[in-house]
Amino acid sequence: MSNTINISSKLSQFSDQWCPRRIATVDDMQVIVAKISGEFVWHSHDTGDEMFFVQKGTLLMQFRDRTETVSEGEMIVVPAGVEHCPKTNDGQECHILVFEKLATKHTGDVDHEMTVSEYPEI
Amino acid sequence: MSNTINISSKLSQFSDQWCPRRIATVDDMQVIVAKISGEFVWHSHDTGDEMFFVQKGTLLMQFRDRTETVSEGEMIVVPAGVEHCPKTNDGQECHILVFEKLATKHTGDVDHEMTVSEYPEI
Repeated sequence: MSNTINISSKLSQFSDQWCPRRIATVDDMQVIVAKISGEFVWHSHDTGDEMFFVQKGTLLMQFRDRTETVSEGEMIVVPAGVEHCPKTNDGQECHILVFEKLATKHTGDVDHEMTVSEYPEI
Repeated sequence: MSNTINISSKLSQFSDQWCPRRIATVDDMQVIVAKISGEFVWHSHDTGDEMFFVQKGTLLMQFRDRTETVSEGEMIVVPAGVEHCPKTNDGQECHILVFEKLATKHTGDVDHEMTVSEYPEI
């Protein structure tokens, strides 16, 4: 049995956007992958930091005081408690990995129609 | 100021093998990068799981009962307490990212000439 995880292969298993899948756990952290396009929801996480890695495309990580461009092969850490809102360039899709606590909620304390409460494991 | 982390750029800053650099922290976890070639040391970590991501080349993760081949763009989780020994194909270099607890020691309880006690931040 192989425990090797192929990220591209995992991402090829779904096409819906803003609906993360869990591909691994490391202690009390999880690795989730998602396809995103457009703008998400402003929120923060008191539960812990969140690290985003861009597998494909470009992620624009909006903070209240600036926007950071995260390109393919780059990553960014969003500290706990800091408001942020991921988005992409118009009409473009971006594939991301997120590394965060298992207890971290999709949109923090914000309840939104985009909020997903459970991440399927793939 | 940008907090974006470019993994290739970080890896271009050093050439010594088996000497990890810390490029980020996420809560009580760290992200380290390393260039490896040849065989490491058999060890395990009671402190927590360890996740390896292959940025370039091929990682052969040896366990006592099998060897897993982890190719570019793939990752593998080594559970806490499980003996393992990373190696590469003969004469080839592999570039890896490792996600693990800040408290996790390079070679666990094993003291070896390859053991590094501090990871410089880059």
